[in-house]
Amino acid sequence: MSFVMKSMPSSLAVAASATSTGQISSLQTFHSLLGQQHRQRPNPHRTNLRSIHNGQHRDLKTKSNKHVLILGSRGVLGSTLADHLSDEWNILGADVVPSQDSFNDYIRLPQHGSVADLSLCLYRGISQHIGDKKLDAIICASGGWAGDVDPDIGSGGEEEEEEYVKEAAGVVERMMRVNYYPVVAGSLVGQKFMNRGGMFIIIGASAALSPTPGMIGYGSSKAAAHHYLQTFGADTPVTSVGILPLMLDTPANRAMLAGDDDNDDRYTKLVKPIQIAQEIGEWIRNPHLRPHSGSLVKVIAKNRKDGSGGAAFHLVR
Amino acid sequence: MSFVMKSMPSSLAVAASATSTGQISSLQTFHSLLGQQHRQRPNPHRTNLRSIHNGQHRDLKTKSNKHVLILGSRGVLGSTLADHLSDEWNILGADVVPSQDSFNDYIRLPQHGSVADLSLCLYRGISQHIGDKKLDAIICASGGWAGDVDPDIGSGGEEEEEEYVKEAAGVVERMMRVNYYPVVAGSLVGQKFMNRGGMFIIIGASAALSPTPGMIGYGSSKAAAHHYLQTFGADTPVTSVGILPLMLDTPANRAMLAGDDDNDDRYTKLVKPIQIAQEIGEWIRNPHLRPHSGSLVKVIAKNRKDGSGGAAFHLVR
Repeated sequence: MSFVMKSMPSSLAVAASATSTGQISSLQTFHSLLGQQHRQRPNPHRTNLRSIHNGQHRDLKTKSNKHVLILGSRGVLGSTLADHLSDEWNILGADVVPSQDSFNDYIRLPQHGSVADLSLCLYRGISQHIGDKKLDAIICASGGWAGDVDPDIGSGGEEEEEEYVKEAAGVVERMMRVNYYPVVAGSLVGQKFMNRGGMFIIIGASAALSPTPGMIGYGSSKAAAHHYLQTFGADTPVTSVGILPLMLDTPANRAMLAGDDDNDDRYTKLVKPIQIAQEIGEWIRNPHLRPHSGSLVKVIAKNRKDGSGGAAFHLVR
Repeated sequence: MSFVMKSMPSSLAVAASATSTGQISSLQTFHSLLGQQHRQRPNPHRTNLRSIHNGQHRDLKTKSNKHVLILGSRGVLGSTLADHLSDEWNILGADVVPSQDSFNDYIRLPQHGSVADLSLCLYRGISQHIGDKKLDAIICASGGWAGDVDPDIGSGGEEEEEEYVKEAAGVVERMMRVNYYPVVAGSLVGQKFMNRGGMFIIIGASAALSPTPGMIGYGSSKAAAHHYLQTFGADTPVTSVGILPLMLDTPANRAMLAGDDDNDDRYTKLVKPIQIAQEIGEWIRNPHLRPHSGSLVKVIAKNRKDGSGGAAFHLVR
């Protein structure tokens, strides 16, 4: 017996996987496509900022000795981040899918198991890859979305009701595993491996700032991640920031909206992964542009149909 | 190797167990003591309200046919609730500890396992005990507190660091298991077994309305529970309310404050379990006194040293 996931309320929710159990990110197959698009598109904002901060301008071939860890590096957002930031910094990726050739430095994380298992695996992987060096940024780009199981489906009798209870509980637990526990693991290894003045960045969800009917497990897991980030940020010598898009522009999310791309205004509000990657790049490069530690930053996208436009980053709290 | 839990910030945090892994509630040994105290103390407020609502006055021996499920029924709060509410209603208790004789109707819950396991066990237990009847209230009184593991302890070398990461991750996961997942299980069975017009009540924590340094796992689990309650309350035909004390008056919490009871003002702010039990009793008895569904209600206690005083219930949001 299978249960249909409720369709997502319009323009709500973030991210990647609603289908596979326990994956930190799952849309790695779209990586090359997105990566290509981004490389070909000129980026005036970035060039501009580089010319302002001349001292920090670098040949793309000459990397700094900074190290950036990306959790969920094989998802749409994570791979865009890795691609964009690898121009200047050494990227260490981590995800639950098998390694491919795109990164030399990659930690394969366990898909199941306890938070301690996940955290220890990450700890050992970092230790092995960077040795005595420190990380300058940890970005938690992993996450997944699933809507509530439709309760009407479980109204056909005791067996169906039990199946409903089981499925619904499973969604709630899975959401916590993909959206909250990687944040915890990242913060714990961050305490050990990060330089003072480093950055710890998570991806939250602006939808979870209010009740989230239709996706109660997702919203609660993001609310937990927000609280964790706000507390962690108040307590540590690194700058910890939560980036909260309304909905990411990914193939899966576009398919979920299921409208007419050309005549549907909702698509212009989708936040492109590269817009987040560029902002994070600025923050790593320029400490004075960073939001204060412990803050949540909403991302509002205003993209035009010709592909131009931008995203604004507003402090929530 | 053992880790010391950080001492709790003054007058923060709620509830029961900081010591035993995975228990929904663990202070059942204090039950009879607390129960005795409450039975012997006159309760003018309750008497008063009963005389106002004469139509609902009942001989204590004659119960209504209403059924109330208490999750965490063997903890300090849960047992106080069971004791107080059993005067008028049929109580079905549920907890992870073995059954004793105090309730005929008791569901033994699994201490470990998935949220689905917990929810299914609860579903089957209710089904077995009440058959075709419905529940009029579900109260989730389970929960536990643990502070952060002290990060300084893990600074002695790689082995100690790994132990720190493991312990800290374990605390975070355990907090989610005791403070969030029972709320999920209760809500899922509530959808199937509750009367329209019933109440679903959880115990949150007013500390978790702001960042919670020193208890990041605890605060995040309560933030998740708050979000879940607010969303669930907006979406269902039952009245769902979160009660948020600052700190419960339990032997464990008194021991944690470790002050001088007689000359320490913090003790007067501890919320007595019976104060919560009385308020919930009023809500079950009188639907017009209930807060609106999806609301979080802060409890502020002002108890005098002679044992008199009271608790005020303020709407947070």
